[in-house]
Amino acid sequence: LYKPLVDNLKKRSPSYPEDEINMLISRMAVENVASKTILLHEGSICKFSAYILEGCFRYFTTNADGAEFVTQFAFDDWWMGDMQSIINNVPTKFNIESLADSTLLKISAEDYNYLLKNSPAFAIFNQKARAKAYQSAVERSMDLRVDAETRYNNLINNYPNIIQKVPQYHIASYLGITPESLSRLRKKMAS
Amino acid sequence: LYKPLVDNLKKRSPSYPEDEINMLISRMAVENVASKTILLHEGSICKFSAYILEGCFRYFTTNADGAEFVTQFAFDDWWMGDMQSIINNVPTKFNIESLADSTLLKISAEDYNYLLKNSPAFAIFNQKARAKAYQSAVERSMDLRVDAETRYNNLINNYPNIIQKVPQYHIASYLGITPESLSRLRKKMAS
Repeated sequence: LYKPLVDNLKKRSPSYPEDEINMLISRMAVENVASKTILLHEGSICKFSAYILEGCFRYFTTNADGAEFVTQFAFDDWWMGDMQSIINNVPTKFNIESLADSTLLKISAEDYNYLLKNSPAFAIFNQKARAKAYQSAVERSMDLRVDAETRYNNLINNYPNIIQKVPQYHIASYLGITPESLSRLRKKMAS
Repeated sequence: LYKPLVDNLKKRSPSYPEDEINMLISRMAVENVASKTILLHEGSICKFSAYILEGCFRYFTTNADGAEFVTQFAFDDWWMGDMQSIINNVPTKFNIESLADSTLLKISAEDYNYLLKNSPAFAIFNQKARAKAYQSAVERSMDLRVDAETRYNNLINNYPNIIQKVPQYHIASYLGITPESLSRLRKKMAS
């Protein structure tokens, strides 16, 4: 059950010691999540992080008028949660919703912070993952400067299966365009 | 000389031990940087991180046509450098240029990574700072979905002195609008 996580840790950090892997795994618990479950609510403190064994999720935030904006998706083998909220103990600005029946390996925010302090390999793994996530977020902000067609192509190149997994209106929200514009764009690309 | 840095460390991490502060400081060196110096080149590995004692910088990236896009500014008391490049040892996608004569406390990427492994307080400080930077990057990507006037207001609220410090065409590039549009926007706001 823990194999995908262990493989993932060893792939990214080949020198991750066995005892520290066990230290992490012993603090994780399997959780099955039904589709359309809200796992995190904007304004609350994020109480967990999770490794996605199988599933599909969207992060979204709302503006003053209550309109939703999809900021990110998450798939198999990704870590999920709001690190800013977990590490700095501040309210999250995000909601997380499952878009399919999913299976997680969950760890509490408390245990996550414990490992950051007491497992050097986990701390280094986390640093590497954070640096990469930051880079993605900056690239995403660059992405919003280009036209919708380029944005759509970038998304498809990064996540070839996203069209099968995620409803079109969430993809449109992520791209910052209307579902109608996305539909026109897809027809244009297909022809 | 090191006082602003020490104050900043203690403000963010009150329990930062003295011996670990000394461990950090002993690996830093003062560097004066003239205005319009490029400190980091797109495509290279970032070899340093720096605490800005005094100064003003812009991060920018270029597209396939050579056009520049300002992605970020940095001011007094900020840490500077490309963590993704430093920690994961990959080429940076950014250029960093000084916009004023500036004074830095510089640390090599090698020493930065050494401290992440050998100074628990520095590792935790870095984790907190990374989580915050990630949050800012995500907010920035949200920001690019709103209209230019709101973006300008957000910028001025976050950095009230930016207009005095940064040339207008760099601010326009950051906002993703032309200098002429920024000029019209400023006139409209002033009236």
